[in-house]
Amino acid sequence: MTVHSPEPAKAGGDKRERILDAAEHVFAEHGFFAARVSEIAKRAGVADGTIYLYFKSKDDLLISLFESRMERVNAALAEAIAPIARPLDKLRTFIRAYLTLVAEQPSVAEVLTVELRQSSKFMKEYSNPRFAEFLRQLAAVIADGQAAGELDASVPAPLAARAIFGVLDELALSWLLQRGEKFDIVRAADWVGGLLIHGLAGGPGLQRSNA
Amino acid sequence: MTVHSPEPAKAGGDKRERILDAAEHVFAEHGFFAARVSEIAKRAGVADGTIYLYFKSKDDLLISLFESRMERVNAALAEAIAPIARPLDKLRTFIRAYLTLVAEQPSVAEVLTVELRQSSKFMKEYSNPRFAEFLRQLAAVIADGQAAGELDASVPAPLAARAIFGVLDELALSWLLQRGEKFDIVRAADWVGGLLIHGLAGGPGLQRSNA
Repeated sequence: MTVHSPEPAKAGGDKRERILDAAEHVFAEHGFFAARVSEIAKRAGVADGTIYLYFKSKDDLLISLFESRMERVNAALAEAIAPIARPLDKLRTFIRAYLTLVAEQPSVAEVLTVELRQSSKFMKEYSNPRFAEFLRQLAAVIADGQAAGELDASVPAPLAARAIFGVLDELALSWLLQRGEKFDIVRAADWVGGLLIHGLAGGPGLQRSNA
Repeated sequence: MTVHSPEPAKAGGDKRERILDAAEHVFAEHGFFAARVSEIAKRAGVADGTIYLYFKSKDDLLISLFESRMERVNAALAEAIAPIARPLDKLRTFIRAYLTLVAEQPSVAEVLTVELRQSSKFMKEYSNPRFAEFLRQLAAVIADGQAAGELDASVPAPLAARAIFGVLDELALSWLLQRGEKFDIVRAADWVGGLLIHGLAGGPGLQRSNA
């Protein structure tokens, strides 16, 4: 499946970015289905037809937006964990950095966690290389911790990565959809970090086997 | 928001159930958006118009189907944990029972985890009492474990319940969407049970503080 338009020229690249920025806000505000391409065009300051020079369809625009933002998320996470030595601390930092991104960029998070799921094409047909990259990055941290004897090696690292993503995604979703005053998702990050690292049966409220 | 049609009469109740059974299979097979009410009617053996005597719209049918199946899931989980004494074993049993339901009833799981999210009405407007009940049931197990000193009391029980649901939901989703040979989700249940209870830093592959 092709989700990319042909590589745009330099000036065009700027226009492509403007369309993606506009789509991020319009999708987050109105939802993927209700969002109108004409409103995205207006917000980006381009003619309606210009959008179709860069993206084949609204689904293609959503998937390209996902790829663009997920690439930034992956880069931000890689940068956050790079200076840290111990795998266990890397894991804690990864969890905190992801949920901090959600808190700081709610419209990106809205697209990644809520709107994207409404595209049947995305859920069922798209192979999703950027998400695979996210999982690989997280699984590598876990595998390093297992190799160093810091983390339990009996759970396969890719499964553990998927489980941790499930926790992060569910927290992001419940935070985004919460009406009224939202809970503190960055504080929640430290709780779930503790839960995933020490387990419900071994957290700081009970006996603690290691730091 | 009203999602229920008025209580149907006894014979009608049977017809309502037949429509829900048909909807479960048609939604799972074609997806919520592509599913046609006329196909659901045909499969249920009723006239197209009959469906609208019980359900206001396709969205209403999806939400009623969710309520019906989630009620069964909640009852099955309550039954699975009822005979077990220790909160820690209850938690393990809850996790295993949920993922076993996914493995045994993939069309129900498909509707609960994949199709439902495609309804913007469900995601954003519906208050979802059955899911709240699911979370309450899980949080109660955790709170009991905390009160008994078996589980870490520093993580709020509702947040831990939400995090555990995130793990279960993500595993169900990745299992359902996996093409080709699927991984063993019931075996995965024991891994994630261990991960959530003992943590990545305290599983059986490392030192283990308690059973």
